[in-house]
Amino acid sequence: SNQYANLYQGVKDSKINLNQPLDTFLRRHMGPSPSDTDKMLSTMGFKDLTEFVKSVIPPQILELNPLNLQAPQDGFTEQEMLKHMTQIANKNNYKVKNLIGKGYYGTILPPIIQRNVLESPEWYTSYTPYQPEISQGRLESLLNFQTVISELTGLPIANSSLLDEGTAAGEALLLSFNAHRRKKNKYIIDKRLHEQTKDVLKTRCNPFNIELIEMDCYNLEELTPILENDPQVFGCMVQYPSTDGSIIANETLTRISDLLHAKKNTFTMVADIMALTLLKPPSEFDADIALGSTQRFGVPMGMGGPHAAYFAVTDKLSRKIPGRIVGISKDRLNKPALRLALQTREQHIKRDKATSNICTAQALLANIAANYVVYHGPQGIKNIAKRIYGLTTVLAETIKKGGIHKLTNDSWFDTLTIELNEKYTSEDFLKLAFEKYNVNIFANDSKSVTLSIDETVTTEDIEILTKLFNEGETLEIDFNQIPELPQEVQRTDEFLQQEVFNAHHSETAMLRYLHRLQSRDLSLANSMIPLGSCTMKLNSTVEMMPISWPQFANLHPFQPSEQISGFLELADSLEKDLASITGFDSISLQPNSGAQGEYTGLSVIKKYLDDAGQSHRNICLIPVSAHGTNPASAAMCGLKVVPVACLPNGSLDLVDLNAKAEKHNDSLAAIMITYPSTYGLYEPGVKEAIETVHSHGGQVYLDGANMNAQLGLTSPGFLGADVCHLNLHKTFAIPHGGGGPGVGAIGVRKHLTPFLPTNSIAPPPTATTKSISAVSSATYGNALVLPISYSFIKMLGNKGLPFASIMAMLNANYMRSRLEKYYKILFVNKENGIDHCAHEFIIDLREYKEKHVEAIDIAKRLQDYGFHAPTLAFPVPGTLMVEPTESENLEELDRFVDAMISIKGEIDAFIGGEGKGNVLKNAPHSLEDIVSSTDWETRGYSRELAAYPLPYLKYNKFWPMVTRLDDTYGDMHLICSCPTVEEVSEE
Amino acid sequence: SNQYANLYQGVKDSKINLNQPLDTFLRRHMGPSPSDTDKMLSTMGFKDLTEFVKSVIPPQILELNPLNLQAPQDGFTEQEMLKHMTQIANKNNYKVKNLIGKGYYGTILPPIIQRNVLESPEWYTSYTPYQPEISQGRLESLLNFQTVISELTGLPIANSSLLDEGTAAGEALLLSFNAHRRKKNKYIIDKRLHEQTKDVLKTRCNPFNIELIEMDCYNLEELTPILENDPQVFGCMVQYPSTDGSIIANETLTRISDLLHAKKNTFTMVADIMALTLLKPPSEFDADIALGSTQRFGVPMGMGGPHAAYFAVTDKLSRKIPGRIVGISKDRLNKPALRLALQTREQHIKRDKATSNICTAQALLANIAANYVVYHGPQGIKNIAKRIYGLTTVLAETIKKGGIHKLTNDSWFDTLTIELNEKYTSEDFLKLAFEKYNVNIFANDSKSVTLSIDETVTTEDIEILTKLFNEGETLEIDFNQIPELPQEVQRTDEFLQQEVFNAHHSETAMLRYLHRLQSRDLSLANSMIPLGSCTMKLNSTVEMMPISWPQFANLHPFQPSEQISGFLELADSLEKDLASITGFDSISLQPNSGAQGEYTGLSVIKKYLDDAGQSHRNICLIPVSAHGTNPASAAMCGLKVVPVACLPNGSLDLVDLNAKAEKHNDSLAAIMITYPSTYGLYEPGVKEAIETVHSHGGQVYLDGANMNAQLGLTSPGFLGADVCHLNLHKTFAIPHGGGGPGVGAIGVRKHLTPFLPTNSIAPPPTATTKSISAVSSATYGNALVLPISYSFIKMLGNKGLPFASIMAMLNANYMRSRLEKYYKILFVNKENGIDHCAHEFIIDLREYKEKHVEAIDIAKRLQDYGFHAPTLAFPVPGTLMVEPTESENLEELDRFVDAMISIKGEIDAFIGGEGKGNVLKNAPHSLEDIVSSTDWETRGYSRELAAYPLPYLKYNKFWPMVTRLDDTYGDMHLICSCPTVEEVSEE
Ligand SMILES: Cc1ncc(COP(=O)(O)O)c(C=O)c1O
Ligand SMILES: Cc1ncc(COP(=O)(O)O)c(C=O)c1O
Ligand SMILES: O=C([O-])O
Repeated sequence: SNQYANLYQGVKDSKINLNQPLDTFLRRHMGPSPSDTDKMLSTMGFKDLTEFVKSVIPPQILELNPLNLQAPQDGFTEQEMLKHMTQIANKNNYKVKNLIGKGYYGTILPPIIQRNVLESPEWYTSYTPYQPEISQGRLESLLNFQTVISELTGLPIANSSLLDEGTAAGEALLLSFNAHRRKKNKYIIDKRLHEQTKDVLKTRCNPFNIELIEMDCYNLEELTPILENDPQVFGCMVQYPSTDGSIIANETLTRISDLLHAKKNTFTMVADIMALTLLKPPSEFDADIALGSTQRFGVPMGMGGPHAAYFAVTDKLSRKIPGRIVGISKDRLNKPALRLALQTREQHIKRDKATSNICTAQALLANIAANYVVYHGPQGIKNIAKRIYGLTTVLAETIKKGGIHKLTNDSWFDTLTIELNEKYTSEDFLKLAFEKYNVNIFANDSKSVTLSIDETVTTEDIEILTKLFNEGETLEIDFNQIPELPQEVQRTDEFLQQEVFNAHHSETAMLRYLHRLQSRDLSLANSMIPLGSCTMKLNSTVEMMPISWPQFANLHPFQPSEQISGFLELADSLEKDLASITGFDSISLQPNSGAQGEYTGLSVIKKYLDDAGQSHRNICLIPVSAHGTNPASAAMCGLKVVPVACLPNGSLDLVDLNAKAEKHNDSLAAIMITYPSTYGLYEPGVKEAIETVHSHGGQVYLDGANMNAQLGLTSPGFLGADVCHLNLHKTFAIPHGGGGPGVGAIGVRKHLTPFLPTNSIAPPPTATTKSISAVSSATYGNALVLPISYSFIKMLGNKGLPFASIMAMLNANYMRSRLEKYYKILFVNKENGIDHCAHEFIIDLREYKEKHVEAIDIAKRLQDYGFHAPTLAFPVPGTLMVEPTESENLEELDRFVDAMISIKGEIDAFIGGEGKGNVLKNAPHSLEDIVSSTDWETRGYSRELAAYPLPYLKYNKFWPMVTRLDDTYGDMHLICSCPTVEEVSEE
Repeated sequence: SNQYANLYQGVKDSKINLNQPLDTFLRRHMGPSPSDTDKMLSTMGFKDLTEFVKSVIPPQILELNPLNLQAPQDGFTEQEMLKHMTQIANKNNYKVKNLIGKGYYGTILPPIIQRNVLESPEWYTSYTPYQPEISQGRLESLLNFQTVISELTGLPIANSSLLDEGTAAGEALLLSFNAHRRKKNKYIIDKRLHEQTKDVLKTRCNPFNIELIEMDCYNLEELTPILENDPQVFGCMVQYPSTDGSIIANETLTRISDLLHAKKNTFTMVADIMALTLLKPPSEFDADIALGSTQRFGVPMGMGGPHAAYFAVTDKLSRKIPGRIVGISKDRLNKPALRLALQTREQHIKRDKATSNICTAQALLANIAANYVVYHGPQGIKNIAKRIYGLTTVLAETIKKGGIHKLTNDSWFDTLTIELNEKYTSEDFLKLAFEKYNVNIFANDSKSVTLSIDETVTTEDIEILTKLFNEGETLEIDFNQIPELPQEVQRTDEFLQQEVFNAHHSETAMLRYLHRLQSRDLSLANSMIPLGSCTMKLNSTVEMMPISWPQFANLHPFQPSEQISGFLELADSLEKDLASITGFDSISLQPNSGAQGEYTGLSVIKKYLDDAGQSHRNICLIPVSAHGTNPASAAMCGLKVVPVACLPNGSLDLVDLNAKAEKHNDSLAAIMITYPSTYGLYEPGVKEAIETVHSHGGQVYLDGANMNAQLGLTSPGFLGADVCHLNLHKTFAIPHGGGGPGVGAIGVRKHLTPFLPTNSIAPPPTATTKSISAVSSATYGNALVLPISYSFIKMLGNKGLPFASIMAMLNANYMRSRLEKYYKILFVNKENGIDHCAHEFIIDLREYKEKHVEAIDIAKRLQDYGFHAPTLAFPVPGTLMVEPTESENLEELDRFVDAMISIKGEIDAFIGGEGKGNVLKNAPHSLEDIVSSTDWETRGYSRELAAYPLPYLKYNKFWPMVTRLDDTYGDMHLICSCPTVEEVSEE
């Protein structure tokens, strides 16, 4: 009988029962209705879902033990979920004023941006802008971000976000290391870097035996000889202002820079983005790299993330910069148009030779920060900074005047370090601050505390702080002033004079600007985004709501754990659920992207091997079909990548695997495999492969990007793996945000548990003496988006999760079965012994290449049909990989299939030399092309065919903003910030 | 010197001060930046704002006393506002379970609809869809609403919303009354109507001396003789189910209907929309009219409003139905397209002969209700109703079984009436329910209570209620069942089989449907909507946020006042502020639209005159330039409208006024004037006119639609008026919602205070024995949107409000001064003695009529330029009235002016016989027209000219979905619900 059918109870059925909720999340999350499901099953010749499941999943893979989630058996309803989440949220103390600082500051997210970006599905459900013609909105916004960074740092090239300040520092370290082809191995950091940044650097140094030398970089006497004489030094990093609040002297900076450059070494400044509006920019000191967090530009602290880190470099380093860069190019009509530039640096092309493993970044947060600046304008952000400096200075004066405690920094922007009067320990003092004044500050050690003033601090708060530092006495304070930074440290240039930063300062203007950008971007609000390997499923409203609640948004990652018990409860429960789903013992939520998860997982494996006296093991086997992040991450861990072949039928070549494992028997560290494979297939030999690797002493890393085919049906643990990462932003409903945030949680088997990453300021409950040091700045990484996955799991429950995987596979197989009559589907065919795909499949277009039809032509033409292209050229060049997910309904699947069938006709026309075939080559067609181009008579096809090849398009069409982008032109003429007024007027 | 300049402090200026907030609401609300302002002033030749103000506002009008608001002097910042609002909100008990019923029920607003409709500026900032080509999205949604109503009531014609159930009942009464040309004067109502409905009916009867006869309509023996024999009876109204929960017998309904129809009288059923999914529809009983609230279809109770009332009639009455009807017509290309049908019934055409005075309705709420049905589908809403019935029945059984209290209704859908055991008074029992069980129920009298089960009630709630009714004992309850209504009352037809109600049941599908609709509608998120007399200003996010908070959304209007002290504090403070702004003594917030405000104000005047022994006074003077609602409202109050002429220069003809006042000296009740006049001019003679009317014993009603030119600069009170209404949805920032909600608060001078409307269940603090009975169902009318105006006022403060008016006038005059070089501007010219307009001005296009260019051509052509047309043909046919408001910036003003100048060239081309002039006649041009039309060679102009007449359009263009609508066709072939499946397949 059909064990899955009854999950569709409730409103779709008229037989209801008072004991059961009507409106389950399940039926809202799944695209196919019961009748859609029946239709699809019968189209494919299945009796019911049970039979379908049996045919699709190899029996040796299917795990029969049910999930064991911390949730009601049938999941929460949406209303129960919101109630439950409110209860958890209210256990967090979000009313205390967090002045802890240390990289995380109170900020005001302007409500217009909150509502129209953070809470807008048009912004948060889009993918990384790989298809630029339908992504010009967020590309413009990311270009704005790069412009802000470039102008504030003074450095010409900025990327559009890294994961956080710590990992960005890690990237700077590696960039510096690589500049000398890894021949030098000492890196100097100032002791006044944030602790968590040092931690992440430490982790990054490990695989390469880089010696991290912590020094007092203010002290040139000490520093100069090393910089001048030690041939192993390859770079130096300082923080500006420093973690204690002080500002390193301009002359010192210049001197360090000069000394480094004399030896062709690299100088990196970690700089506070808000302070940079007032302080001289890193370019003034010839810094090669500037980096930092942009959190305080409107992004909630959110318990540590997600926030966009910035990273800017000199022209010289433009080809070495990690992460995504938006650049200006032009389209087929010579119209300026934006796109991701220099993609050839990246892991999906360069693999283990890539500049970094960054794939998912922090696009949504970069967009919030950029729009914060658009809304405030240059004078606005400067005034915010002036006010912060002013209030800090007023407070500093009263502490000095009061004379009870000792202010230890004699320069500052927003942060003061105070040596407490001997009567107090830091512990007492923090307790006093919290209990009596409702303020959290930071303890540096038992006698010294730090606090940071931010945009949200009011004069009343300063009065309260004055009392705190003056044993309850009120000092008279003159607020009718605005103290200014000493002349010599002030920047004097005018920045951000571009129109976009000076035009949208009223709410109405801002609303329209955001709306205009949004209308250019295809998101899940328009149509399906069938990107294989990306799992663009529903990001439901109920899942999203809590992330704007102050109960989560206002938390500081270093807030005492008693104050955040709601969050900790949520994290603990989510970890348990993910452990059940992965079949593993422990979970770390710290990695903030899939690629970071890979890096973390491999680092854990390495530490385990070290601990077991196996530190010589350094070979990582990776199938040639693997995602580019796999080899890139392995390389970051200092592992040597050895590729494993695949068979012509797509499966792992077990003979080759055996041979390689045998060959590297003594040095085999790990294998990285993806399951179902990156081809979307349940490889039958996976267990055998895993056993082979184990038998040669290697650990098995499973890339969980395709977890959406596994939920409750099989698991990495069941298959025998040792570690996996989960892209919570794929399978677990965190929206892709136009290119991030993500969460790359990892799961591990018991023997690896002790090695999970820690955080030296706020260690997680799982921390041990064997823990690897931090991989991200905050203990829980992108903590603020965890409620999304938490809710997703709790609302689907033990039966609903497997049902989601089944529906995802049903959708994929239905599309495949319709499309295979028109296109070659890779690796799925009777002869091959693989009758069905899992949750995605590959359309092979390589046969058309010799006829001059490229896969990209089909990808672009799909835009004219209102669709985002499937994944292009991964895992196989010349193909498209389609992943519909469980959230698409039959109507949408059919609409896509119909579009592809119609395109097949166009391919045939092109090959047959019919004029109408040209429609492929000119695709996509922008509105301007339709309206204004004058060559329509000579194209061989009509405007009607270009724009409305199928009838539904008249009713529902998404228009590309520009025509096909010229990638080469853009890479050759790299422009990656908004043109200045002069540049515009020169045109 | 310039007293207004310093309001622009803060971020736009680099001289800041720690004592002042940086980010004031003022600078975000106003469109013009300081430099915009300077530019505009200098363009017009003014030194500064002070000089400008002096030139624009006649000195005798300018009020020099500053406002005296209950707000910080400089207003709250946005952050302070949210904090303040949270404090107020938390004073409301929103956690208690409100089972009070009586027309207001708990309901679940699906989160996808909350986020994407209620919280989406694209939905809430649009205007009533008078320009159908750029409103097809909400027109489709309103057609869905009408379809839901039509199918659930079984009546063919439904409008797309009235203000609430009470006023809808009032409309039914008057429709019935008019059917016999007002010759009969008795109306029967069942005693089991909701109290508040009876109240509103009472109010409506007053002016016409209609006798409202309350009877037991269940008792045919009593009723039959009256219906058969009393020649004065013109109709009868029953409620279904009744207020006590019982369901009137089918035979009784049929019998009443037959008896009425035998005398050509009208039968009205007030029917619960949720119950109608299970009960036989009104059409089965030959009802002529069905009406009710659609609140429980997803719209929060919100303390009584806003909610959309529905109103449906038989075909016979299709031309008599009040309110807006969406109809299907076709466009220039013969494509089906939607528009407002039968506008000729309405007040803006028919004036005092209109079917009603309805102008602003409840479009946003109708859209929410319609989308609730789209999301749940027919089976979904039926199941919700079944569950409600089931839980009610289970509770009823336990009450009977318990035997302590006595259930008095023997039939029910969701409501039970219980006669309490003699040990209890209702007061005790309500207290017990609240204090011990956290439940609110309703006391009918001292011994009987009522409660209603709703969609949000769970089995746990039923268990709690069982305890309440069984002195704390738990009875065993079997929830494994679903009781069914008795066969004979059940409806058996399949309803809502149209595709739209059966296609969007997954969240993804619903998101896309909402997004698709939204993308067809021009809203303030796209461009300015310069509708004269409509004041389409910023509806800021901070103002909007609190209306989705449960602290306001969950309140029941009959909740005890101790539980809603936050709301009451807000209402009281808002009333005080509005009193200060109007210069009056008291305010009533009850009327839920401007037109309702007029009706209320005039009713108050009438009651005052009655009370003063002047009930014979029945003449209302109304200038010919008045808005159509003025005469329509006067007519509804039984007043005789006497028009007053205007001079060729647009001013009130004081000579004519004098003569009319003289002539009607003994019967003069009132004058209704608009200030600044509907022409947007500060009429210099207003004070004189007011004195004239007073001297003839009349009261002065000031239509406050143009209050946006008065804020803190002058006031109705200062001018000498006695009453005014305020459209809080214009001047006070409540968004227009695509056609409502509105709030038509009225202000009165002290002598009228005792007469302000009350509510018999929950009288406001101002109620007296002289109060007129209710004009709306709920004491505070559209209470849930009051926080918007409250915040608007509190954030601008005493100085910011007048500044807003000044900026509105600056914007209008700047546009006027640029446009007057190209177009004739009505009534503003040196010779006329009126150098400046106030906040709006009229472009006179009548001279082109003889050259065959109509104002509508320009209005439609503006759509091609991406703009919503200004107000067409009001107050002067053949003209456009432009009102930019203070929220538009210089760039947008210029963009509009440039479009109008470009159109002037097109007018000239048309008149000169150039082909390019045809672009006006074919405007607007839809995408489909551009892409698919085959007559482009013969049009005389290019696609480029059609679509991109100015360069900005390539960058930022809003596309009309269809071409020009054919109004006549649609009115002749009235179709006002979605076609059924059969109808579609016939096509
Ligand atoms: C198979 C596979 N592995 C790893 C990743 C990297 O994940 P992330 O983008 O979160 O870094 C991806 C991303 O698309 C992927 O498809
Ligand atoms: C001058 C004038 N009076 C009254 C009204 C009626 O207001 P409402 O639409 O809120 O009923 C309007 C509406 O546009 C108006 O412009
Ligand atoms: O995001 C991917 O590179 O697949």
